[in-house]
Amino acid sequence: MRLRIFNYDLSPHQTMILGFAVVIFIGAVLLVLPISSATSQSIGWLDALFTSTSAVCVTGLVVLDTGSDFSVFGQLVIMLLIQVGGLGFMTFGVIFAIMLGKKISLKNRLLIRESTKSISSISVVRLAVGIMIIAFGLELIAATILTLRWAGEFGWQEAVYQAAFHSVSAFNNAGFSLWPDSLSQYVGDPVVNLTISALFIIGGLGFTVLVDIYEKRKWRQLTLHSKVVILTSSILTLSGFIVIFIMESFNPQTFGHLSLAERLWASFFQAVTPRTAGFNTIDTGAMMSTSLLFTIFLMFVGASTGSTGGGIKTNTFAVLIMTLRSVVKGEEEVTVLKRRISDNLVFQALAVIILSFGIVLLVSLLLTITEHTAQYDFLEILFEATSAFGTVGLSMGVTGELSPLGKLIVIATMFIGRLGPLTFAFALALRPTKSKIRYPEDKILIG
Amino acid sequence: MRLRIFNYDLSPHQTMILGFAVVIFIGAVLLVLPISSATSQSIGWLDALFTSTSAVCVTGLVVLDTGSDFSVFGQLVIMLLIQVGGLGFMTFGVIFAIMLGKKISLKNRLLIRESTKSISSISVVRLAVGIMIIAFGLELIAATILTLRWAGEFGWQEAVYQAAFHSVSAFNNAGFSLWPDSLSQYVGDPVVNLTISALFIIGGLGFTVLVDIYEKRKWRQLTLHSKVVILTSSILTLSGFIVIFIMESFNPQTFGHLSLAERLWASFFQAVTPRTAGFNTIDTGAMMSTSLLFTIFLMFVGASTGSTGGGIKTNTFAVLIMTLRSVVKGEEEVTVLKRRISDNLVFQALAVIILSFGIVLLVSLLLTITEHTAQYDFLEILFEATSAFGTVGLSMGVTGELSPLGKLIVIATMFIGRLGPLTFAFALALRPTKSKIRYPEDKILIG
Ligand SMILES: [K+]
Ligand SMILES: [K+]
Repeated sequence: MRLRIFNYDLSPHQTMILGFAVVIFIGAVLLVLPISSATSQSIGWLDALFTSTSAVCVTGLVVLDTGSDFSVFGQLVIMLLIQVGGLGFMTFGVIFAIMLGKKISLKNRLLIRESTKSISSISVVRLAVGIMIIAFGLELIAATILTLRWAGEFGWQEAVYQAAFHSVSAFNNAGFSLWPDSLSQYVGDPVVNLTISALFIIGGLGFTVLVDIYEKRKWRQLTLHSKVVILTSSILTLSGFIVIFIMESFNPQTFGHLSLAERLWASFFQAVTPRTAGFNTIDTGAMMSTSLLFTIFLMFVGASTGSTGGGIKTNTFAVLIMTLRSVVKGEEEVTVLKRRISDNLVFQALAVIILSFGIVLLVSLLLTITEHTAQYDFLEILFEATSAFGTVGLSMGVTGELSPLGKLIVIATMFIGRLGPLTFAFALALRPTKSKIRYPEDKILIG
Repeated sequence: MRLRIFNYDLSPHQTMILGFAVVIFIGAVLLVLPISSATSQSIGWLDALFTSTSAVCVTGLVVLDTGSDFSVFGQLVIMLLIQVGGLGFMTFGVIFAIMLGKKISLKNRLLIRESTKSISSISVVRLAVGIMIIAFGLELIAATILTLRWAGEFGWQEAVYQAAFHSVSAFNNAGFSLWPDSLSQYVGDPVVNLTISALFIIGGLGFTVLVDIYEKRKWRQLTLHSKVVILTSSILTLSGFIVIFIMESFNPQTFGHLSLAERLWASFFQAVTPRTAGFNTIDTGAMMSTSLLFTIFLMFVGASTGSTGGGIKTNTFAVLIMTLRSVVKGEEEVTVLKRRISDNLVFQALAVIILSFGIVLLVSLLLTITEHTAQYDFLEILFEATSAFGTVGLSMGVTGELSPLGKLIVIATMFIGRLGPLTFAFALALRPTKSKIRYPEDKILIG
């Protein structure tokens, strides 16, 4: 799995970064062609790069309207980039996890082993094929359902096209839609709500969890990782549902014209989409500050490791919360669902959250500079930064108005967010200095 | 050190919380008296409670103008509350640290030992006396300097009064000022800038560091804790200076009418005040978003453990960053300045940052609800929440306009911020269930 370029031996982390960069570049080249544009005029390099990055990194932030600014060719390129980006990452992610697991068990460090045990015996080729069968299978089922739903509205040909595009976009948590207001016209539609959200929720659980559920069937037999992911995702979704339902009930701009059923559907959809689908059925920018702040929190946590989604991941979040609980209770070890977890795991979680906070803070800082003249409310800036970092794709409206420098910053943020800050940190890090010196222990006060 | 109330055995943490609550209540009773008001009309219970909490918790957020809404009696009460709150906490903090150190070394856990070694042999009474001598000594020196500076301007009597009040407020990082624009009229005055900032910087280092410096004199002999505090504080201050100087140079509202010398002084002062003095020499609300966001970051980090300042503390921040570095470099252990630090220390730091983020997020969420009608920019809300939590006292202008419910939320935030979120978590936590069960180890994916 090691790649040699110009006599330089790339690490797996570096290979992954380079691979994504190449796909993004190819995508940008295709999208800059006049044939990709709805007019005969090219969309220009910057917007092509932005769109390609957003598609490959399955983010869904858009500087152009996907439905009206691109030709069918352009839209198919975007759909392909989403599929390559989503699946490529999933496949690469799992293979990488297995490799990491092996590397680390050798080194007697802990990371994965148990959670990938169920699949680590399968060959890499069979694994990649398995992932694709699951992905295409689910996308096909969903596309069929959506085609039936939309046929009456758009006619069969258009319905198939719309259904295929939105199914691919949903399973990969990409959030691209062919409608400028995303799925707002189906705010109370059970078929669209359930089909789309089922796709991105399943896609957001991650391949290891899906295989685990498929193999074990029973809750008690699931791996710790699967249980933690499912429990944490459920709790976060429920909290989001409650916060959004209560707060938006006071908001005539979003819930004003909706029936109770539509309000319940809208609350459900807006609670699941920040992790990290990026579709919306009500106007994001019109939501209450409280709902938006909670959405920022949900976007920051994101989906689960090895999935098509971004963020610090539900599993990382759970480890942080359980560590907090152990410290408060004065316990020596961190336990999650009656299982001990190693100190190294906690350290990794800490590294992820500190880096992620640092990146969101830095991106927000930079955007306050580059978008200074637009006089945005800071919530809009923070929302944009978190959405890009979490590869969510929701926006309060900043994306479309970004300055050229702002676009470059968001492009970089989506890229870093998709590959994970630790991947970059590892890729940039010098080889550990294997010093034999063991320094004496000392103390620092805390808190 | 254990207190028994109504047959209920209070833990040290609970004693500390109760102690502060009692002092705050007494302060509120004194401030609600008509004699404390500048008019013969009482300021009312809510504002009295707010002012007392802000003074005892050495925060400096004000709902009334200290200089014009209170009588001299009221101002003296505030000054006394600041002194009791600041010194009380410092004394209690150090004694508490020693107790904790003993308790924990018994339990073979790690926290302090080394860093308090220099003072743990002194009796508690001598220790308290020592702290008071340092505090009053420094306050007296500063007050003398400020009296000489202000005598020409205000006459001797008024100058002594102003100097005494601002010295007490500065050493205790309280941030209360008798002028509505804080120290803005002295933006370029070297004497006022240096005297006030020297007081709060020294006060913010913490007693253990001061004693350490006094005893060792040489950098190499200082404890790890002292070195980390001094280095981290210096780096943060320098970063703040650079960010503010550059950003505000583009801001006619703050630097527009200032000379280069005044700009340098203003940048220095605004870089040191977020940790966590709370005075200001330029209009906080008029600063650039970028500067304000960086200030929020500085306020969140705050001062150092055992000092008169708040926040998560520079030493906690340093541990987090060094853990991140270790994880990225793939090292097994966390080392700081060629010293190993224990896993438990890292866990404590993680607990502090997660709790602190959680509190600032929750307070911001609540304020977006209670202050909804005021249509604040979210930066103003986040600034207010962080300032209250970090007991900083800077405000973009929200404090004076808070709704009654908002005042109660900020009161609670200052109280929690002063005592530290972990103190509350420990106080509320049930006794650890000393289960003999050792659960099997398991893994969760991270990042
Ligand atoms: K997305
Ligand atoms: K303060």
